[in-house]
Amino acid sequence: MPIVSSKGKAMPESPIRKLVPFAEKATKEGKHIYHLNIGQPDIKTPAVAMEAIRNHQLDILAYSHSAGFESFRKKLTIYYAKHKINVTTDDVLITTGGSEALIFTMGSITDPGDEIIVPEPFYANYHGFSTQSTIKIVPVISKIENGFALPSIEEFEKLITKKTKAILICNPGNPTGYLYSKEEIKQLSKLAIKYDFFLISDEVYREFVYDESEHYSILQEKGLEEHAIVIDSVSKRYSMCGARIGCMVSKNKSVMQTAMKFAQTRLSPPTLAQIASEAALETPESYYTDTVIEYKSRRDILITKLNEIPGVKVAIPKGAFYCIAELPIKNAEHFSKWLLNEFDLNKETVMLAPASGFYSTPDKGKNQVRIAYVLNKEDLTKAIEILKFALKKYND
Amino acid sequence: MPIVSSKGKAMPESPIRKLVPFAEKATKEGKHIYHLNIGQPDIKTPAVAMEAIRNHQLDILAYSHSAGFESFRKKLTIYYAKHKINVTTDDVLITTGGSEALIFTMGSITDPGDEIIVPEPFYANYHGFSTQSTIKIVPVISKIENGFALPSIEEFEKLITKKTKAILICNPGNPTGYLYSKEEIKQLSKLAIKYDFFLISDEVYREFVYDESEHYSILQEKGLEEHAIVIDSVSKRYSMCGARIGCMVSKNKSVMQTAMKFAQTRLSPPTLAQIASEAALETPESYYTDTVIEYKSRRDILITKLNEIPGVKVAIPKGAFYCIAELPIKNAEHFSKWLLNEFDLNKETVMLAPASGFYSTPDKGKNQVRIAYVLNKEDLTKAIEILKFALKKYND
Ligand SMILES: Cc1ncc(COP(=O)(O)O)c(C=O)c1O
Ligand SMILES: Cc1ncc(COP(=O)(O)O)c(C=O)c1O
Repeated sequence: MPIVSSKGKAMPESPIRKLVPFAEKATKEGKHIYHLNIGQPDIKTPAVAMEAIRNHQLDILAYSHSAGFESFRKKLTIYYAKHKINVTTDDVLITTGGSEALIFTMGSITDPGDEIIVPEPFYANYHGFSTQSTIKIVPVISKIENGFALPSIEEFEKLITKKTKAILICNPGNPTGYLYSKEEIKQLSKLAIKYDFFLISDEVYREFVYDESEHYSILQEKGLEEHAIVIDSVSKRYSMCGARIGCMVSKNKSVMQTAMKFAQTRLSPPTLAQIASEAALETPESYYTDTVIEYKSRRDILITKLNEIPGVKVAIPKGAFYCIAELPIKNAEHFSKWLLNEFDLNKETVMLAPASGFYSTPDKGKNQVRIAYVLNKEDLTKAIEILKFALKKYND
Repeated sequence: MPIVSSKGKAMPESPIRKLVPFAEKATKEGKHIYHLNIGQPDIKTPAVAMEAIRNHQLDILAYSHSAGFESFRKKLTIYYAKHKINVTTDDVLITTGGSEALIFTMGSITDPGDEIIVPEPFYANYHGFSTQSTIKIVPVISKIENGFALPSIEEFEKLITKKTKAILICNPGNPTGYLYSKEEIKQLSKLAIKYDFFLISDEVYREFVYDESEHYSILQEKGLEEHAIVIDSVSKRYSMCGARIGCMVSKNKSVMQTAMKFAQTRLSPPTLAQIASEAALETPESYYTDTVIEYKSRRDILITKLNEIPGVKVAIPKGAFYCIAELPIKNAEHFSKWLLNEFDLNKETVMLAPASGFYSTPDKGKNQVRIAYVLNKEDLTKAIEILKFALKKYND
């Protein structure tokens, strides 16, 4: 029987998916599960996007240009300008989700065996994308004690080799909720210029920033133009994850021309979803403000409630809609399975994402979980109460 | 300035895209271009699919399951059963176009440096996908003289090394229009079993088969279960290229589990397009019959007209909607550019796809072009008349 490749074997399983069979079993047994484990927002997609779909007048659902609709890319430059990011239509390549933008970026700037330095904990699927490109993620540890702030530049410098092709950050961060300061971005920029590699910034949560903080994009940084590659997506911005529309943005022409060859090979990004995404650019400002107010109040409840649980440590997220919590347990994976398999409080339980999947250093984050606050406040409150009760029971 | 990778540099440009700037210039100059170069059908998408989109009732455009809607996958097994292909829901993984099915397949069964044997000329983007996976396409030449039939098994055996992970065929073929016979599939199957590698069959043109021929899928072949991987797509079947929905089908569990890890990493295939594609399964039989009748009559006109041009050689395509034509010229790329740049007949010209992009052996197919018959009969007739006139003028 022919077998799969070493690469195929090395592909990681998502840290969440591992728990899915247990969740399915729990549901079958009649347990209600509060999902603190997923990044699928419960916020409605903007009506203007959904209507554009309902009103489509196409006879033929044809391929679009491989770089995406020109009109959409042009309008995106206006969106970016509002965020003080100055780019042209040619600097934007529409991709099938931010996911594909990550694949194109890695494909364009790395060869097998190359390295990308990533502050950990990081978005778990960076593992998968780097394995797919047969490159290595070199982690630099950020710590819950200082809110997952940027590790010192010396820590990065220690890890730089000839094979280092980029530093990849997520800003604001999934799973940490950390928002990099302008000063931190400037430090990273200097480093990228000094060692002549790329700085990739995954900014799919750009709008989700709390406490009057301001997001500072690497594309705002003067002098970094040839080094900066931004990963973007409509998934979270418009609660439109199923559209599968994102983009790659860079002023480095040779990077964009190279990414375009990957884009041509796969022909085009989805046409219907581009119609929806282009229309979504007309979303009224109030949508974002309301969404941010909602997430902020969820975050506040979550953090307050978590801090009330003895032995729980948590860094206050300044952006995105996740946080990493350290629990008074040894093994979060075991605990998460136990929650689904053996525990319930009046037929209810919670599902968590064990944080070890967000680390690449072995044994890191074993007592941590990622909690997404994509539930309404009532459910979120209930879920954390259940978690509190469960921790007590588990530890008894 | 940081630079792109060797892999990025090695990514091929599509043989068609190279001509696009010339086509744009011609259009600006007021020339009308008959596009014989593209695979975008002019047939309407089934109404049932388009209506499903217009009638969607979603509030949130959410991620789907990474393998695609379960209901869609289940219905696909019924579609396959109608084609005498016996598979279960678990044997089907929904992908973002057949393109992504090719990426997942190569990712699952190859490591960098591995080899896949492909009869050439082949679908040009196999170049791109294999470069993306840093693997090597090993071509085995099929010849216009015998209608691009399967090269002898000895030719394949000569090319097998330790690194050979699969043979990849396209059936019916783009760009050749060749339909493999049951006997040829059996020969390939025996080979795959003997040397214990995979047989990948790209069957995205399954329905487009003429002259009472019957399509024989590798999934119908007993004993090949663990070796067979099929690439499929709704793009051509329903003239729904912009949906970006395809699938990978195999009974090899470890291959499917591995592909699923790639699928999880990129989260999900497009949701709206899955709604359309699931609805498209309700397309009435008459849609296919009408479409096949239409393409067959276009093919007949095309072949008749081409045969009337002195010095043109063409193999009669038995499937898909392309043919390779050998022209009485030296360099088809030069000729194709000339057609756009310097030639016109009453302000009209044609755009061709130079066939060298469909070969990986250097200098092969230089005097050949691929012609797609996705134009209506009137336009097709005109286009070939223009080609006839142009060839005369070019050679004078
Ligand atoms: C940090 C981060 N980057 C990228 C993505 C990919 O999102 P998509 O492919 O839906 O755009 C996600 C999705 O959760 C994410 O959290
Ligand atoms: C032979 C072949 N395979 C695969 C594809 C990919 O199609 P899609 O990604 O639209 O399903 C095409 C498109 O032209 C093709 O001709």
